[in-house]
Amino acid sequence: MLSFVNHLHAQHCPTYEFYRGEKVPCFEKVERYDYVIEALKANGHEVSFATSSANEVLAQVHSQRYLDFLSSAWSRWLALDTANASVQPFPSVWPIRSLRDDKEPDNFIAQLGLYSMDNGTPMVAGTWQAVKQGADCAASGASHLATTGRPSFVCSRPPGHHAGSDFMGGYCFLNNAAIAAQTLRNHGAAKVAILDVDFHHGNGTQSIFYERSDVFFISIHGSPTSEFPFYLGYADEIGQGEGKGFNLNLPLAAGASVETWFDALNTATQAIQQFAPEALVISLGVDTFIHDPISKFALDTPDYFKMGDCIASLKLPTMFVLEGGYAVDAVGENVVNVLNGFESFVSSNA
Amino acid sequence: MLSFVNHLHAQHCPTYEFYRGEKVPCFEKVERYDYVIEALKANGHEVSFATSSANEVLAQVHSQRYLDFLSSAWSRWLALDTANASVQPFPSVWPIRSLRDDKEPDNFIAQLGLYSMDNGTPMVAGTWQAVKQGADCAASGASHLATTGRPSFVCSRPPGHHAGSDFMGGYCFLNNAAIAAQTLRNHGAAKVAILDVDFHHGNGTQSIFYERSDVFFISIHGSPTSEFPFYLGYADEIGQGEGKGFNLNLPLAAGASVETWFDALNTATQAIQQFAPEALVISLGVDTFIHDPISKFALDTPDYFKMGDCIASLKLPTMFVLEGGYAVDAVGENVVNVLNGFESFVSSNA
Repeated sequence: MLSFVNHLHAQHCPTYEFYRGEKVPCFEKVERYDYVIEALKANGHEVSFATSSANEVLAQVHSQRYLDFLSSAWSRWLALDTANASVQPFPSVWPIRSLRDDKEPDNFIAQLGLYSMDNGTPMVAGTWQAVKQGADCAASGASHLATTGRPSFVCSRPPGHHAGSDFMGGYCFLNNAAIAAQTLRNHGAAKVAILDVDFHHGNGTQSIFYERSDVFFISIHGSPTSEFPFYLGYADEIGQGEGKGFNLNLPLAAGASVETWFDALNTATQAIQQFAPEALVISLGVDTFIHDPISKFALDTPDYFKMGDCIASLKLPTMFVLEGGYAVDAVGENVVNVLNGFESFVSSNA
Repeated sequence: MLSFVNHLHAQHCPTYEFYRGEKVPCFEKVERYDYVIEALKANGHEVSFATSSANEVLAQVHSQRYLDFLSSAWSRWLALDTANASVQPFPSVWPIRSLRDDKEPDNFIAQLGLYSMDNGTPMVAGTWQAVKQGADCAASGASHLATTGRPSFVCSRPPGHHAGSDFMGGYCFLNNAAIAAQTLRNHGAAKVAILDVDFHHGNGTQSIFYERSDVFFISIHGSPTSEFPFYLGYADEIGQGEGKGFNLNLPLAAGASVETWFDALNTATQAIQQFAPEALVISLGVDTFIHDPISKFALDTPDYFKMGDCIASLKLPTMFVLEGGYAVDAVGENVVNVLNGFESFVSSNA
């Protein structure tokens, strides 16, 4: 499968994040990418740098003020103090209910809080370069699918599915899956489905398309009662306004069995079939892996091949976008197993 | 002036907070209280423990689910791990826009984030005991004013004015000024005004009364464009629904002169006169002091006497509730100067 790879990913290289008030080393490591690239090459998948720019689609998915902030955040941070070059900025206050988010304060840390949902999303000097290139890869993968009808894989980090229209969170800055879906729409697909199989609910993607009927968002994930992002991902979130009926959450209890997970996948694929989209985007997190350090599902390496096979059985123009997965050395094999399972079904049904 | 003092305040004794991603020692120190008590006694002010319970009024000011959480938070935290006895819990994700706040997750840290606006409000084993006693002092001060017509001072820490109906923040857990105002309403005062002179906008108090016409909230504070809490306190916030016209914010640029500050106080007292309340609650922060370590106004110790005098010139039944002020050794003298200025006007106009 042609893979669009983010060769600038390592410019986003934070060293620590906050977890429950303690500084801890980042789970979302640079090495995640290396393992996936190695597995792609070992399995004969072709790789390409980005061939399209996401410049236009970015403003359809994210708010302009957020893009302005994100693209200039590091220079704003340095402008406060040149010694900040070696310091990761973190917010300290957030505009929750009763507080306003319509005004951007002059204070940089308050700006960072305005555009964040957590304090677990560290930023460094090269973050914008890395995430912008990731967005370009997502646009490229979607353009490739739209113009050739052939599947693609977007190999990029950091992930994207927690990023909302105007906020970062959960290691995510730009929402690559949303960028891919919108690019497919721009290429003429009337209806696009996004299936998010990451362990964590894709709150950003859901919220971006929550009032739209042209993009159907489906997510299988650990229940928000116990799992990040905690405040979204319940089954009663079915979309709003024109989007009503075009959002499907399938939360599973932490510790759910592999069988339960595949039952949910079956429910998801049936709903996608009924929606009958012209293209499908998979938010491909492999933190559903039994040995993932921060997640609580039980999939094992061969299950990822089966996952790819199930997705392929939909017989839809399909692309994959890398999201989470933190059991670093296994991430490569698990991701590539999904792609291989997909391609195996396609060739045996050609 | 009769002062209702929170003798349990020292049970709230956190050692560190987060400021821009770094652990720093708490600014809101136990010693703040000691300096105020010392100054009260040195100036002949009588002190009393709480004489009323805030049990009933608490549920009028705060949501029941927040009270349930706060009163049981430490035992919930210990239930996770007995080793947590010596660990201050901090949230790591917050339900900002597009995320839900209508469901309480089972996860304790997610609960903490649901009920917080920042990660600068540390909690320890005795926090509930301390803040509940503070609420009792606020109810007692208000009852004393309502039943005797004589002024009172509520000497308690931590402060309260950043705490909203269902969230903590800015060192605050229960909103003592709101508890005092509601207690005065319960005692029959048809209209109550709250004047907040703390350096920081009293976002919690504003939001609690934002849709009510019976409690007029007025605040003089550092502009939210550069100062905490950043996301509320603009001049265009005038109240909503029935509360429209009953909220007045007077934000001043950081670095505003003493003259500018007293001009704003003059505007505030004129607005209070026009409202003609039956009682007045002062949210008395003295972080407007020129040597305060985290604030940016320029008032000096004699200015606090003048402040008390100006407030007394309204000739209203008045009570004072301690809020911020972090230049520890000066906090006592500055607070008591306000009370002395108030009493001096009263006796010379008796």
